[in-house]
Amino acid sequence: MLSRKSTGIKSSAVRELLKFAKDAEFISLAGGIPATDLIDIEGIDVSIQKITSGEHRHVFQYSVTEGEENLRSEIANWNKSFQFETSADNIIITNGSQQAIDLLNRVFLEKGDTVLVERPTYLAALQLFGYTDATVAEMSYQDGKIDLAALEQTLAAGGIKMLYLTPCFANPTGTSISEADRTTIVKLTHQYKVVVIEDDPYDHLRFSGESIKPLYTIAQELYGSDHHVCYMSSFSKIFSPGLRLGWIAIPQPFLMAVVVAKQALDLHTSTLNQHIAAHYLQSGRLNTRLTLLKATYKERRDLLIAALDEHLGDAITYNRPEGGMFLWCHLADDVNAAELLNYCVEEKVVFVPGEVFFAQDPERNSLRLSYSMLSASNAGKAAQRIARALARYRQDLLSK
Amino acid sequence: MLSRKSTGIKSSAVRELLKFAKDAEFISLAGGIPATDLIDIEGIDVSIQKITSGEHRHVFQYSVTEGEENLRSEIANWNKSFQFETSADNIIITNGSQQAIDLLNRVFLEKGDTVLVERPTYLAALQLFGYTDATVAEMSYQDGKIDLAALEQTLAAGGIKMLYLTPCFANPTGTSISEADRTTIVKLTHQYKVVVIEDDPYDHLRFSGESIKPLYTIAQELYGSDHHVCYMSSFSKIFSPGLRLGWIAIPQPFLMAVVVAKQALDLHTSTLNQHIAAHYLQSGRLNTRLTLLKATYKERRDLLIAALDEHLGDAITYNRPEGGMFLWCHLADDVNAAELLNYCVEEKVVFVPGEVFFAQDPERNSLRLSYSMLSASNAGKAAQRIARALARYRQDLLSK
Repeated sequence: MLSRKSTGIKSSAVRELLKFAKDAEFISLAGGIPATDLIDIEGIDVSIQKITSGEHRHVFQYSVTEGEENLRSEIANWNKSFQFETSADNIIITNGSQQAIDLLNRVFLEKGDTVLVERPTYLAALQLFGYTDATVAEMSYQDGKIDLAALEQTLAAGGIKMLYLTPCFANPTGTSISEADRTTIVKLTHQYKVVVIEDDPYDHLRFSGESIKPLYTIAQELYGSDHHVCYMSSFSKIFSPGLRLGWIAIPQPFLMAVVVAKQALDLHTSTLNQHIAAHYLQSGRLNTRLTLLKATYKERRDLLIAALDEHLGDAITYNRPEGGMFLWCHLADDVNAAELLNYCVEEKVVFVPGEVFFAQDPERNSLRLSYSMLSASNAGKAAQRIARALARYRQDLLSK
Repeated sequence: MLSRKSTGIKSSAVRELLKFAKDAEFISLAGGIPATDLIDIEGIDVSIQKITSGEHRHVFQYSVTEGEENLRSEIANWNKSFQFETSADNIIITNGSQQAIDLLNRVFLEKGDTVLVERPTYLAALQLFGYTDATVAEMSYQDGKIDLAALEQTLAAGGIKMLYLTPCFANPTGTSISEADRTTIVKLTHQYKVVVIEDDPYDHLRFSGESIKPLYTIAQELYGSDHHVCYMSSFSKIFSPGLRLGWIAIPQPFLMAVVVAKQALDLHTSTLNQHIAAHYLQSGRLNTRLTLLKATYKERRDLLIAALDEHLGDAITYNRPEGGMFLWCHLADDVNAAELLNYCVEEKVVFVPGEVFFAQDPERNSLRLSYSMLSASNAGKAAQRIARALARYRQDLLSK
């Protein structure tokens, strides 16, 4: 009885791997999960207490679809210090930024449309595109960067409706698109009337290098308020994933359609959680917490890199991200990371095989390692276990 | 740039009317909103305090897609006293039952499918069907009840994938389907392999008459655990809409597809809110609160009926629901309730024109009056204002 689309979509490998996270003996480099020990539980508790001590009957009642006004204002205010100007009126609160992708898919995509994505790209976005009638295609790359000349050719050929980008510390690659390239992309998509979805949950987790202007801002500077870039971000990586709060900044021409879609989907996002986040933002604690988060993630990135160097040496190559949570790695060409994972599970270490992040022609020897939850005592162990699994995998390959 | 589907779907008239609710001079009979004054704010606060006083770092972290185990268990336990047996393993937590409809649409509906609905039916379900590729068709009625012989013919003709029902105190009609008719529907849909979606947020608000077995239970009794009825309910009408919590009880064969869809849509529902609800259910306060809610809604139903009788007399006919929140009314055949609403807005009273609840051939003279928020002092005023608006509307009709 299930629809074909539904039977075609598999449970995310990442989510399935989360079950290993419950076994204390396992070391998980799999989840894109913010460090539990760094959640500002005291700060959130203060916000909860404040909200429930005043008159607060309304936080348990229905709310408006676009989101509570105080949260939208706090988001608009907070972002001003990050080269991001938008009016509270252009912000819609969502259940994490994941729902934001779903909303924009509903509003823009129909049969015959093509969505262009990065190579590789965010797994859950690929899952969501699978529920639409649109086709997904990857952009071409040259020297590890988007091939802008090829992009122009593709756009000029027509049929592209949407460009989905994670321009900052992308999941899974951890890389960012330069301001110059962002500007070209904004101009090209404007010229060829293509909507850009800028998915940006990691921008606030930069621990080295210079911050880069969002495409949303570039589009605003070039074309005013009536532009074609929809920006989404999330509180999940910097505040609390359990509250399920994300937001979209959306240009006026598309605003009402997104509100109507959100209204149909689930009326609105939790009133209580919106008030908690609004109070927390207002308290000013988030910036202090971000400083701690960034310092810790930098430390953990370096721990993981040092451990990989020590135990795997030339057997693995990786990027060196300036922020975010992920190390994007490659093994030798003949290694299949999904098969290696089976050996790793036996050694009690897990990661996400890179193949799941590709819309087409997956790189089988790629893998994503998340360092956000990594402790100093586990880094060496994790790399040792992967090295052991790789040795056994190689032996079995030879004996086949 | 917007998709055709998206531009075809209008904002819900009900949600648009909510803006009048903020003007203190307005009396709103429009929203399907639980009485704000009856939300058990003290009880919810106790639950929040309990949760945030123990070790609770996990309530701010990511959770599993299907929902927190303690909440699913509490729901399964609590329902046992309502002729509803299901395992916690069959329950998936959603953002209100509205998201449950969306999830099931994704999992079941594709191009070429037809969804059968009641006449009239829940407006937001119609909106959601509008985002799918399925066609919506109304069932036939005889003497105000579903024509079961006609239903069998329709099912036998083929092409029907899903039957969407609100069998208890339906929104908007307030009517319920009898156990005998439910049984026939379960058997027919089983025979013709049609999925039944049982949307049941009002069952716990019965203030007179005997409770009726859910179709889910009937299907279980007839066909065991491997049946074709998906049941959904919500905490919005009985506990707190602002927490956005609903749930689906779903037979095993469909379970994984729904989990995968929910995972793609928004990963999971707020961890914090799930823990609040689990604690509240465990506290036993919900049943006490339901007693108060039911007594109050019965009182308010009677207040509204008495006021309509006094001020509108024969000009209006209505049902007399045994539970829920709605009075479904008809005016004379030549009255267009949507046009009358403009006069009512001038008189500062609002309702929902019935036409929005029809998939086809709307009854223009119908209207939905909600009594859940009605105070004793407002009932007479509301009816008087409608009567005044109707008189002015009639005068203008004559002078045209």
